[in-house]
Amino acid sequence: MLNYTSIDDIENINSWIKEAQEIKANPLKNKDLGKNKTLGLLFFNSSLRTRLSTQKAALNLGMDPIVMNVSGDAWGIEFGDGTIMNGNTAEHIKEAAAVVSQYCDIIAVRAFPSLIDKEKDESEQILKSFVEFASVPIVSMESATGHPLQGLTDAITIAEFSTNKKPKVVLSWAPHIKALPHAVANSFTQAMHKMDVDFVIANPKGYNLNKKITKNTPVYHNQEEAFKDADFIYTKNWSSYESYGEVLDVENNWTITKDKIADAKFMHCLPVRRNVVVEDTVLDSDASLVIEQANNRTYAAQLVLKKILENA
Amino acid sequence: MLNYTSIDDIENINSWIKEAQEIKANPLKNKDLGKNKTLGLLFFNSSLRTRLSTQKAALNLGMDPIVMNVSGDAWGIEFGDGTIMNGNTAEHIKEAAAVVSQYCDIIAVRAFPSLIDKEKDESEQILKSFVEFASVPIVSMESATGHPLQGLTDAITIAEFSTNKKPKVVLSWAPHIKALPHAVANSFTQAMHKMDVDFVIANPKGYNLNKKITKNTPVYHNQEEAFKDADFIYTKNWSSYESYGEVLDVENNWTITKDKIADAKFMHCLPVRRNVVVEDTVLDSDASLVIEQANNRTYAAQLVLKKILENA
Amino acid sequence: MLNYTSIDDIENINSWIKEAQEIKANPLKNKDLGKNKTLGLLFFNSSLRTRLSTQKAALNLGMDPIVMNVSGDAWGIEFGDGTIMNGNTAEHIKEAAAVVSQYCDIIAVRAFPSLIDKEKDESEQILKSFVEFASVPIVSMESATGHPLQGLTDAITIAEFSTNKKPKVVLSWAPHIKALPHAVANSFTQAMHKMDVDFVIANPKGYNLNKKITKNTPVYHNQEEAFKDADFIYTKNWSSYESYGEVLDVENNWTITKDKIADAKFMHCLPVRRNVVVEDTVLDSDASLVIEQANNRTYAAQLVLKKILENA
Repeated sequence: MLNYTSIDDIENINSWIKEAQEIKANPLKNKDLGKNKTLGLLFFNSSLRTRLSTQKAALNLGMDPIVMNVSGDAWGIEFGDGTIMNGNTAEHIKEAAAVVSQYCDIIAVRAFPSLIDKEKDESEQILKSFVEFASVPIVSMESATGHPLQGLTDAITIAEFSTNKKPKVVLSWAPHIKALPHAVANSFTQAMHKMDVDFVIANPKGYNLNKKITKNTPVYHNQEEAFKDADFIYTKNWSSYESYGEVLDVENNWTITKDKIADAKFMHCLPVRRNVVVEDTVLDSDASLVIEQANNRTYAAQLVLKKILENA
Repeated sequence: MLNYTSIDDIENINSWIKEAQEIKANPLKNKDLGKNKTLGLLFFNSSLRTRLSTQKAALNLGMDPIVMNVSGDAWGIEFGDGTIMNGNTAEHIKEAAAVVSQYCDIIAVRAFPSLIDKEKDESEQILKSFVEFASVPIVSMESATGHPLQGLTDAITIAEFSTNKKPKVVLSWAPHIKALPHAVANSFTQAMHKMDVDFVIANPKGYNLNKKITKNTPVYHNQEEAFKDADFIYTKNWSSYESYGEVLDVENNWTITKDKIADAKFMHCLPVRRNVVVEDTVLDSDASLVIEQANNRTYAAQLVLKKILENA
Repeated sequence: MLNYTSIDDIENINSWIKEAQEIKANPLKNKDLGKNKTLGLLFFNSSLRTRLSTQKAALNLGMDPIVMNVSGDAWGIEFGDGTIMNGNTAEHIKEAAAVVSQYCDIIAVRAFPSLIDKEKDESEQILKSFVEFASVPIVSMESATGHPLQGLTDAITIAEFSTNKKPKVVLSWAPHIKALPHAVANSFTQAMHKMDVDFVIANPKGYNLNKKITKNTPVYHNQEEAFKDADFIYTKNWSSYESYGEVLDVENNWTITKDKIADAKFMHCLPVRRNVVVEDTVLDSDASLVIEQANNRTYAAQLVLKKILENA
């Protein structure tokens, strides 16, 4: 594997999950693999879990992480082809990506969507520019349309906590006051498609995800119906995809409650707005796997970095 | 010791000072103790000494420090219990603290007071929330009401430079243009209470510190009288505690001068405003211990981290 | 060598270049030299290449880099002598430099000029204050009037790519929409004066660099004439030195094109504004050495750090 920018980069999710479990059981086993190698973490946006877990993963492999907040620490980056750069951007991605490649053995990038221009967001300009112009492997730490480290983490967590041969997994939309990206929901959907699970999506009308990603997944507009007999309820807000980036009026209350989830396990990528997305009683109960998910972020990242280092 | 959030966490200050001196004499002796362990440094506020000395201390113990400016790098954190999070905060401390605990073996936190709401500041909500919701030890890098790494440093420095069996130590208020916290003065007072020193406080009327902290310490409103026969004059500005957070009019000139300190050693936690808090002639003289204090910050932090690691 | 703050600190550029080439051939040879030593990188301004390459250089020598954005992370620093600090600055450089020296074995500093007050910029107050008040070696990561790590890099790169015994090197001004510093142009000029090259400068009228730095270097106001038979064309914008910090109207088009450079190699320190300073066709051609220059930044920094560590 050269780059890890999408769930599509996982050839065999079951063998990946197995390898991640081995890493989790013995996280320092490959401490020499990344020796004298640097991981550059470039953030165009805020981050807590990804920032820390990816550094931790690199350290477990003996790598030296170098963190940079691109906006604050460096120069405005230009992505346009052939642009006459007489505006606010001071450095072109062609140089920036090639230059960072001189100092980092792997580059990890976080770049959120605008949620204004669907076509531009779906072009994944920032991530794809790094892939094109860097001379070292690129790892997505969440891009406009995907968060593959999170999706891999979620697959690992479901495998870890599943007591059922073919568990029923529901991805449920939940309310939020802001317009949020589709990245986590997309990558979770793609990960579930690769696993042997009974997977359905629940969201209000107007909130259907990109059909090219959900494909044949059953989509319910009735949350109660979707949650019936669920083993895992993965919750996430996203803004409308059809009315791109809009926050629509929703009739019923989609907030996750203890009653609604019944015996299912509750999952969320975090950060989560308590009592908006989900009630305290769920998050503070044994049903919640959110901290276990956060923990598995380290091993998902470590697996990806290990595979890239072994391939080098 | 599990957490280090207050001078009260020091059981025996004399044995701590002795151990700190041993660390200072041989700072790399325990280079293996923190191997493969990470220290998370979370800053809600600015920092120079604490930021660098705590990292240096971690490195001396073989730990990997991971620094995060919470406000700029991550998400707005909610501390309220049961809050409906439909405002500016995006992540609850319950998740944040538990999540950071997945990646860091020790978490160090800096969070200043508002200086507006006394009750809220004294509740030490941020620090105490980390203690409550993290699953790893917490170290205060200055909280609303205390700066215990600084207080420990100051005890170490006084022991190091004392030529007197029971030195006279004065904590003197000095002027400043801004409203400053009581944290350093509080922790210094608490540290002096644990040492065999003759300790008095000098401050203008209206500037008495919290009586629950100063207890029976003699408080002078006449600086000259307080400074008589002093061996160490520890200077710090703080805003009014009674008229909470206010900067009051003060009659006399409380700026520290060469004449005032006579043969005493001058101490300050830094940063210090020259010629406002203290005159150049004092800071630039041999009487000043401020750089030695800054140096001892490393060994105070290293002692605390060492004790926590040994206890793990 | 104690400090590295200017190209003047290079005694023998040819032996330095030779040593840099040895480092480049075997960058981890001195991995033990910096063990248990910290490099403090203090940024008063933005940085990409310098930030990453200097960290990489430190890691190659086994040092622990500690990065600090002075403005955002710490306190406003006062540089005036005898100032009554009742304004916006909270810490004097006398303390700041001495304090950082307690935690870092070498301090690297980046501080750009105002481009408003020539005399103040030329006094190099920030850099010189660190040299004066720190107790450890200082490395310039670009100051008001020089960028000696870049100048050394450029000398190394010219030596690496020269196929001519005495190559012709042209430093050419190019257009830009902002007022930029003279630092890179100054250090490049000083580096070229130390090498066995035929060195000329091309810039529009009104854009002559400081005569104390250019000395007897031939200055052309006709770009075409200057470029004749050039082996290396080093391009950089700078604001007017005579009309200090101003962006003047320029008659001809000074943008670098494929036609203009003919068979010469193109060099630039980056970041570069495409199609303003230089056309895409140059940057995207084999004539461009800009990425090789960026790569050599690591070895220039590593050479400087190595010399300082060996001298310690």
